[in-house]
Amino acid sequence: MQESGYQFIGYRRSTDSAVTFQALNPATGQPLPGLFYSASVGEADQAMQLAAKAFEVYQHASGKTKAAFLQAIADEILALGDALIQRAMAETALPQARLEGERGRTVGQLRLFAQYLEEGSWVEARIDPALPERQPIPRSDIRNMLTPLGPVVVFGASNFPLAFSTAGGDTASALAAGCPVVVKAHPAHPGTSELVAGAIVAAAQKTGMPEGVFSMLFDQGHESGVALTAHPLTRAVAFTGSQKGGMALYQLAQQRAEPIPVFSEMGSVNPVILFPEAIKARTTALATQLAASVTLGVGQFCTNPGLILALETPELDGLLQQLGAAIEAATPGVMLSAGICENFSASSAEMLAQEGIELVGKTQNPANEYQAIPAIAKVPARHFLENPRLHEEVFGPFSLVVACVDEAELAQVIQALPGQLTGTLMAEVSEIESYRSIVQQLQNKVGRLIFNGVPTGVEVGHAMQHGGPFPATTDSRFTSVGTAAIRRFVRPVAYQDFPDVLLPDALKRDNPLNIWRLVNGEWSKS
Amino acid sequence: MQESGYQFIGYRRSTDSAVTFQALNPATGQPLPGLFYSASVGEADQAMQLAAKAFEVYQHASGKTKAAFLQAIADEILALGDALIQRAMAETALPQARLEGERGRTVGQLRLFAQYLEEGSWVEARIDPALPERQPIPRSDIRNMLTPLGPVVVFGASNFPLAFSTAGGDTASALAAGCPVVVKAHPAHPGTSELVAGAIVAAAQKTGMPEGVFSMLFDQGHESGVALTAHPLTRAVAFTGSQKGGMALYQLAQQRAEPIPVFSEMGSVNPVILFPEAIKARTTALATQLAASVTLGVGQFCTNPGLILALETPELDGLLQQLGAAIEAATPGVMLSAGICENFSASSAEMLAQEGIELVGKTQNPANEYQAIPAIAKVPARHFLENPRLHEEVFGPFSLVVACVDEAELAQVIQALPGQLTGTLMAEVSEIESYRSIVQQLQNKVGRLIFNGVPTGVEVGHAMQHGGPFPATTDSRFTSVGTAAIRRFVRPVAYQDFPDVLLPDALKRDNPLNIWRLVNGEWSKS
Repeated sequence: MQESGYQFIGYRRSTDSAVTFQALNPATGQPLPGLFYSASVGEADQAMQLAAKAFEVYQHASGKTKAAFLQAIADEILALGDALIQRAMAETALPQARLEGERGRTVGQLRLFAQYLEEGSWVEARIDPALPERQPIPRSDIRNMLTPLGPVVVFGASNFPLAFSTAGGDTASALAAGCPVVVKAHPAHPGTSELVAGAIVAAAQKTGMPEGVFSMLFDQGHESGVALTAHPLTRAVAFTGSQKGGMALYQLAQQRAEPIPVFSEMGSVNPVILFPEAIKARTTALATQLAASVTLGVGQFCTNPGLILALETPELDGLLQQLGAAIEAATPGVMLSAGICENFSASSAEMLAQEGIELVGKTQNPANEYQAIPAIAKVPARHFLENPRLHEEVFGPFSLVVACVDEAELAQVIQALPGQLTGTLMAEVSEIESYRSIVQQLQNKVGRLIFNGVPTGVEVGHAMQHGGPFPATTDSRFTSVGTAAIRRFVRPVAYQDFPDVLLPDALKRDNPLNIWRLVNGEWSKS
Repeated sequence: MQESGYQFIGYRRSTDSAVTFQALNPATGQPLPGLFYSASVGEADQAMQLAAKAFEVYQHASGKTKAAFLQAIADEILALGDALIQRAMAETALPQARLEGERGRTVGQLRLFAQYLEEGSWVEARIDPALPERQPIPRSDIRNMLTPLGPVVVFGASNFPLAFSTAGGDTASALAAGCPVVVKAHPAHPGTSELVAGAIVAAAQKTGMPEGVFSMLFDQGHESGVALTAHPLTRAVAFTGSQKGGMALYQLAQQRAEPIPVFSEMGSVNPVILFPEAIKARTTALATQLAASVTLGVGQFCTNPGLILALETPELDGLLQQLGAAIEAATPGVMLSAGICENFSASSAEMLAQEGIELVGKTQNPANEYQAIPAIAKVPARHFLENPRLHEEVFGPFSLVVACVDEAELAQVIQALPGQLTGTLMAEVSEIESYRSIVQQLQNKVGRLIFNGVPTGVEVGHAMQHGGPFPATTDSRFTSVGTAAIRRFVRPVAYQDFPDVLLPDALKRDNPLNIWRLVNGEWSKS
């Protein structure tokens, strides 16, 4: 393709920049084929102008129309075949099976949103019919539904090059809501992003979407991302990545003349509490389960269990011996980029150097400079409570076990934690009732509680919550995974005494879409 | 009462400040009886500490328990009898009938929330049951419901001393959500606030609520309001008032170490579009309707129609003659405070001095220095488009008519408007279909569209949307009126593979609360 590496501005490929960059193979540090151009501020403006123009039409697209578009995107991604998987492997060092699974997840969530749109009840139609006889004054007919906010900017994430990137959950939910999307491609996997953006554009053209419903900019630096976030036509921003990046975008958006919502998902340490009876009953199973979750995807999940809390007991020592042995036997893995790997090694080493820290286990198999060495350490709770450095996330396969002398100290540790995406309870049903207050305290810190499972693996469904109290995310009231993610990009609009002819179909008096509506406060299809 | 004028810190009345202030009668400028103490930063901290402590218990209160509390507040407010109305009249100069109506609205919305809680489906329970047989991996059981955020700070508004103040919609919805509330009383009606706060505290004690579920601070200045907003235990803030105040709190909250949502409702000019056929068919009726809405409550509503848009036609001139005559015959009204009245006179005069402005009508009846003189002016659209000063709200009984040469210019005017709470269409059904694009453009600017009605009078129901794109409010995704206002103060929490014994009742497998739940994406009570 002649235009490879150019920006996607609506249906055009173009560039007005001379600054280029290449993707690097994280397993070798060598550049990969393909030259990508860093977008200019002018190109960011072009993409946003086109998106705003497209919004005028796309906001009125029916559920069926948008569903056909999302299905076509899924089809086009699958049609890319093995070329997509191979390029993603080269750019991220993630294994083939993982990337094939992630492609399944990406395509699956596009299709789930398509079904959600076809069913149609997601607009939360609320209807309070007129009460002309009411005293002292009659009640007007008021009808309310969710409507799209406008153009959305999505930042691709490095750790899920498909499911949280160009056509990931943020893009899928924004397009489902009726919002055009401008993606800022993650510079670590530009080739993967380009293939997927091509699939989205092909789908948009085949299904007759207005030009500008999707654009994507490459940029090795921050300039175009800042320009997109600050652009007056941008109505919301979605970001998954570091605390530093997420907060920079958030602050930028709040300082605009017109502040806009920024949904930054910035990861967390995802505390796992091991309760005494569970440790006794399932020592080996727990050690195996935890070792697998800590090292899954080289620990590069936002739900990686980075913190393990337990009461100090002889049985805990027994479990940690097995966990240590499992980590020692683990295989070092190539991380997503050389920078991430360097950060991991440095943070992991810094953690191990803190006062009171004791090594539980560290992988013994040889690793090269691009590979992370998984490790688990232990610290008494009193040190943890005194040292905020120990509360921070080490992005990668590292977990810290905090041993508490009693339940009161365990409660103190939970109290000291910042907001988290998840919290996990490893417990026997028989013992957990006596720890209700611990469960409650954990709930106040997290978006999702897991009972006897692992936090990694985030189901894409209607009930999922992926988002927790700050600083896990910038807005705990929304999820970035699952169908409810669509709510980030909509607002309610009320119509008072409107004639049927002017009402959207979802609110018309005879319910032509046959959707669930809240009529006088009761769900109904009539 | 010996402690009159002291802060309400949980169930105590106390003060540690020597700074006092008095309410002024806006009709005379004279001080009213009663000395109120400006709260200290230390008292703000005490109130928040108690609120956080109360949250530990109150967040688990059942719908029935919270409903009983809200009903008791309504009862206690009614039990205050005429003393409340008299004090509110003295402090606000609002007439008796208006305040009695507002009390009805306040009590009514407390009772509506009580019913909403008793019914219980508002928690939006979402259930994706386990699929143990699913390939390639089984699906976990995931259950999700809305849970309260934590302590909420509410700022009383000056223009609705009951319905948007101490026990107004913000307090009612936050308490309904399960959040303790700390109110910063509006300094223009401290006596009214004290009576209502006493009613809330009595209700809390009678229904056995934890101490700290409600506190209220007086302050003539900003210090304690700033301290409450910046306090680390505060989880959300609700404010109704000026752009300046609302934005100051918003910016303050975004600069906290942990940013929190601020719902500032900052008013708007609420454009009303008069379409040609409607003007022809209903000249006199429209003139009467508009004159009444502009002068209602001395124009001190956030939904006051401050902007009237129309195509320049001979019929428009006819209507404006009648509208002008109606305004000339209007009665000047005492405004909420001397400061508000001065601001109104100055802004109104400044508007009338702008280029291209022509007076349509101005009240001829004599007014004293505490009374506002209602006025309506007209300006050609080309001046309006060039002069941003003309886009600003004049808080009080003032409206600007913008005459457009054609539909294209009308569209330009709408495009130039900032976000609004409401937009109104005065049109014949027969003509409106040919103005679809105008309707659409207006919709993108507002939270509520009204057809052949007036924007004043905001129904408290399930379908109301009171909140619009910035700068009408800081977050257009939420409403501050109606049952959906509860959503501002909650976040979803997901429970994965939880045993029934640990689940909240709303999520238990046999649906003991018999509420509507979204099971596999379908609303159901089974």
